[in-house]
Amino acid sequence: MIGGMSRWAPNARGRLEQAALELYTERGFEQTTVADIAERAGLTERTFFRHFADKREVLFWGETALHEACVETIANAPDSATPIDAVTAALEAAGALIEERRELAHQRQTVIAANPELQERELLKLASLASAMAQALRQRGVEEPTASLTAEAGTAAFKVAFARWVDEPERRDLPRLARECLDQLHTATART
Amino acid sequence: MIGGMSRWAPNARGRLEQAALELYTERGFEQTTVADIAERAGLTERTFFRHFADKREVLFWGETALHEACVETIANAPDSATPIDAVTAALEAAGALIEERRELAHQRQTVIAANPELQERELLKLASLASAMAQALRQRGVEEPTASLTAEAGTAAFKVAFARWVDEPERRDLPRLARECLDQLHTATART
Repeated sequence: MIGGMSRWAPNARGRLEQAALELYTERGFEQTTVADIAERAGLTERTFFRHFADKREVLFWGETALHEACVETIANAPDSATPIDAVTAALEAAGALIEERRELAHQRQTVIAANPELQERELLKLASLASAMAQALRQRGVEEPTASLTAEAGTAAFKVAFARWVDEPERRDLPRLARECLDQLHTATART
Repeated sequence: MIGGMSRWAPNARGRLEQAALELYTERGFEQTTVADIAERAGLTERTFFRHFADKREVLFWGETALHEACVETIANAPDSATPIDAVTAALEAAGALIEERRELAHQRQTVIAANPELQERELLKLASLASAMAQALRQRGVEEPTASLTAEAGTAAFKVAFARWVDEPERRDLPRLARECLDQLHTATART
């Protein structure tokens, strides 16, 4: 469906996102204005605001898709899947979505790591992902506290996998790293 | 050691904290000023700023003590303790500190739950607690990713225990709830 502005601004969203990440990396998030982003992308501020509520949203719009992918994966897991199986499949799916946008995700992470307010925002998004997964587990009949424990611990393992993915020079595949970390949870939590 | 202002303002910190929590509960955090808090406590704004950097800090100053208790417990755990044993002991100690201030902790939680910015702050504090525990585990010779996985998953379980502690009418003992949730992690993460 092509029409209206899109003739004049093909892939405006992608261009704005790329321009924003470049500027956040070069100058810092705080020092970048929406006017700067629009200019770098060769678009107007009006176009920017058609796609994003503010400059922070450029960094977080993808979270909705991750969120939906996780909840859907849990809802559609086979009846035989245990809670941790379902959560692992969900976080592998999330990892695959991030992996598809590997370069942008790395740039984004550098920007977030440099700004405590953005880090807080990122943590809130992760926490809400964990609650949504717990809710999806309860809808499969998983009881509390198992639903919350599995969702929260799974998200914790994903956080560890993600940090490794960002830091490691060999740049391993995120879905695989996520599965490895989730698999190690059981051993790591064994008591003497 | 009694001297200076303390003759005129015995337990000023405690009075300011109590006044702040009352006002945050009655009017909301945003609607309360430092002047309001000082007035309610029968103290001056100057005294407030001698104890707290800003009105948000009234809610978060206790986190440092929790943080230290956790790190110390891990450092002092017996050599025979596994990583999850050490993390469980640490989070029981944190639970005991919160339990000592049970009423204040409940009021505080209600205030934080009503304000997304405070929630983000709380999550950042929890995330930094998890990193500090991972670091304390590495200093005991625990390797990555086990150190981070154990610390993050333990913190996740503590979050679940804390939410139950806040919500349950019977008001069970937090250190015990924390241990129960930590104990259930291993079972909850078992794969088919």
